[in-house]
Amino acid sequence: MSDKEQGILFVLSGPSGAGKGTVCKALMRRLPEMCLSISATTRQPREGEQHGVNYFFKTRQQFESMMASDDLLEWAEVYGNYYGTPREFVEQKLAEGRDVLLEIDIQGAMQVKKSYPNGVFLFLIPPSAMELEARILGRGTETEDSFATRFGAARSELQMMKKYDYVVVNDVVEAACERIESIITAEHCSVARNLFLLQEW
Amino acid sequence: MSDKEQGILFVLSGPSGAGKGTVCKALMRRLPEMCLSISATTRQPREGEQHGVNYFFKTRQQFESMMASDDLLEWAEVYGNYYGTPREFVEQKLAEGRDVLLEIDIQGAMQVKKSYPNGVFLFLIPPSAMELEARILGRGTETEDSFATRFGAARSELQMMKKYDYVVVNDVVEAACERIESIITAEHCSVARNLFLLQEW
Repeated sequence: MSDKEQGILFVLSGPSGAGKGTVCKALMRRLPEMCLSISATTRQPREGEQHGVNYFFKTRQQFESMMASDDLLEWAEVYGNYYGTPREFVEQKLAEGRDVLLEIDIQGAMQVKKSYPNGVFLFLIPPSAMELEARILGRGTETEDSFATRFGAARSELQMMKKYDYVVVNDVVEAACERIESIITAEHCSVARNLFLLQEW
Repeated sequence: MSDKEQGILFVLSGPSGAGKGTVCKALMRRLPEMCLSISATTRQPREGEQHGVNYFFKTRQQFESMMASDDLLEWAEVYGNYYGTPREFVEQKLAEGRDVLLEIDIQGAMQVKKSYPNGVFLFLIPPSAMELEARILGRGTETEDSFATRFGAARSELQMMKKYDYVVVNDVVEAACERIESIITAEHCSVARNLFLLQEW
């Protein structure tokens, strides 16, 4: 397999309140060739969820065996269930020449960066501190204390920007998508990913 | 002046026959905000050429004094005339927050890279060796010997690709322009150029 046919892993991450989920869905609608990474989980399937479409459903034992054999690009335990990103699915799509999009929180993205440094790491941020405040309050589920906690957490998460390749301001979803599509095109033009051209001449 | 308002220098270069001039003109039509770098030269102005528009016209003494005081990002002597890129014009536009486009041969680009490593270096190439052959022959000015020389030179120039940031295949001019516009957008999203955002929160 030459480099030519190799896809690129794009990791969409950022502080909570940035709108990762919304931008990810919009991107998938706009980019029919893009492949969305499917997570593995030990939680029970909900009605309508399909194995290999929404999640790869695993037993605890299966999941822990994947952890042990480094078959996960990242994983976490949330409320007693495991969630993780199977390496095989991602690497298979990349080898087929398909780009892969992975939407994930900052902690997960930092794990992926260790196991797959060749990925392109995008940091999505709200347009301003004021806008983040409005978005957190807009959920209408916050007490004054929990608001302060969430807002403080988001501000300190913002410092993690330095560990990423690109920062994308999510002012308007479609504008953020256009920036990300430009980044995808640019990365495919990077010299490091096109050295195979030298052999063709 | 914060980083926020700083423009980016895009250096468009590549082997002869790649179509640098055509792509540069098309880009300038498509990007009204882009500022084209103006060269200094010691050659006589031709009819209609204006100082500060087509070139900065200089005496040999003026030009040599610019060389001596490192006021040129690059320079060369061609058929007894000096040509070069004045640093002040470029840096002033960048400081005003304008992006600057500089179209230049590979030797010049490598000089610019030394004096302004912060620039973004684009390597434009023809879509294939066959297409390059057709383009050189298409000029209709080549003997068999001069063709072989030019073709061999272009092939060895191609190896310089490794020194650049991006490679852009010039299959169709407008498609090449779109790729370059994506690269411009992506570079404006690079974390390294957006660290000032961390102070705003």
